[in-house]
Amino acid sequence: MRLRNKPWAEEKLAAYPQYVIQQPESHKGKWREAFGNDHPIYIEVGTGKGRFITEMAMVNPDINFIGIELAKSVIVSALDRLIEADLPNVKLMNENANDLRNFFAKGDVARVYLNFSDPWPKTRHEKRRLTYETFLQVYEDILPEKGEIHFKTDNQGLFESSLMSLSRYGMLLKFVSLDLHNSDFEGNIMTEYEERFSRKGNRIYRLEAQFR
Amino acid sequence: MRLRNKPWAEEKLAAYPQYVIQQPESHKGKWREAFGNDHPIYIEVGTGKGRFITEMAMVNPDINFIGIELAKSVIVSALDRLIEADLPNVKLMNENANDLRNFFAKGDVARVYLNFSDPWPKTRHEKRRLTYETFLQVYEDILPEKGEIHFKTDNQGLFESSLMSLSRYGMLLKFVSLDLHNSDFEGNIMTEYEERFSRKGNRIYRLEAQFR
Repeated sequence: MRLRNKPWAEEKLAAYPQYVIQQPESHKGKWREAFGNDHPIYIEVGTGKGRFITEMAMVNPDINFIGIELAKSVIVSALDRLIEADLPNVKLMNENANDLRNFFAKGDVARVYLNFSDPWPKTRHEKRRLTYETFLQVYEDILPEKGEIHFKTDNQGLFESSLMSLSRYGMLLKFVSLDLHNSDFEGNIMTEYEERFSRKGNRIYRLEAQFR
Repeated sequence: MRLRNKPWAEEKLAAYPQYVIQQPESHKGKWREAFGNDHPIYIEVGTGKGRFITEMAMVNPDINFIGIELAKSVIVSALDRLIEADLPNVKLMNENANDLRNFFAKGDVARVYLNFSDPWPKTRHEKRRLTYETFLQVYEDILPEKGEIHFKTDNQGLFESSLMSLSRYGMLLKFVSLDLHNSDFEGNIMTEYEERFSRKGNRIYRLEAQFR
């Protein structure tokens, strides 16, 4: 999501070091220190306004969550939500998905969530999709062996291209739903987008894929 | 599809040896003789009333087609269609998909089509689905290296379980459409089922998967 840059955003992100990780590269290989425990870390790449990551953190107190979002103007909304929720097990990171290897060593991250990622529908923008091969290489490098990606979208084209991209990469499709909200899947936590677009009647697609 | 057995069906199938392969095991490894040429052979497993295979044969004269159907009461309708169309490059086989290795050597078949296969929705019937692992082993044994399966269905559950089954088997998903009739896919040949169910508004799912 692109909004006009908010000049005060950078300042605000710096003012809440308990919620916004300031020097992520300093934690590489020793995230235990950042959270004060050795619970598994699940990250959401493209966390937007942070509803998903915050609600996930509420219902999963034994998991640490990091929401990663490049757009400063968007991540400040996630920060507001975190300040309100005041949870010990969720933090934000204002960084680019391309750079995740700088912040996480192999196995630092126990799971990757991708929710309603930008579909980049034009073929010439294929490489920008967060399920494109180069991003899969990044996730593989920070997850443990047989690590998993959990992915939701309402965008049919993105889901189709993601199925093919994950397959081409050799990943195992462990779970596929082509209509999540009319399935027997339990415990779904909705994102802001998901609520809005499913209410419009859009189908929600979801998959879990494992490196092998 | 199950219909009541028609007692005259067996007799009719035997009366048209030019269209209905009588001793399929006798052709194993030497299908050239059956068709009088060495064009590639594409098979449809579960050919039903034969509309797909007949129309495919019309528009692809340089491919030989074999429609395989277990139900005698159904395959006789396909035979009627073949008698009417009178094409040199399409034949029928009244056999069980489980037995295909008896009729085809490795590479005898150049492509496998599965169209609107019985979804067998109950988990305890999973092994009967034509995209279940044991069937994939059969197709792999009769296709060449990197052989392909082309699969269409309107059944969401079958398509989901097929994506997972093909992935578990290690197959490459080369093409996935989650709404074929509203896509830019060209040259689609419809089956009887496809015409009926797409008219009702059902989405048609389609994939191409390759052994690797």
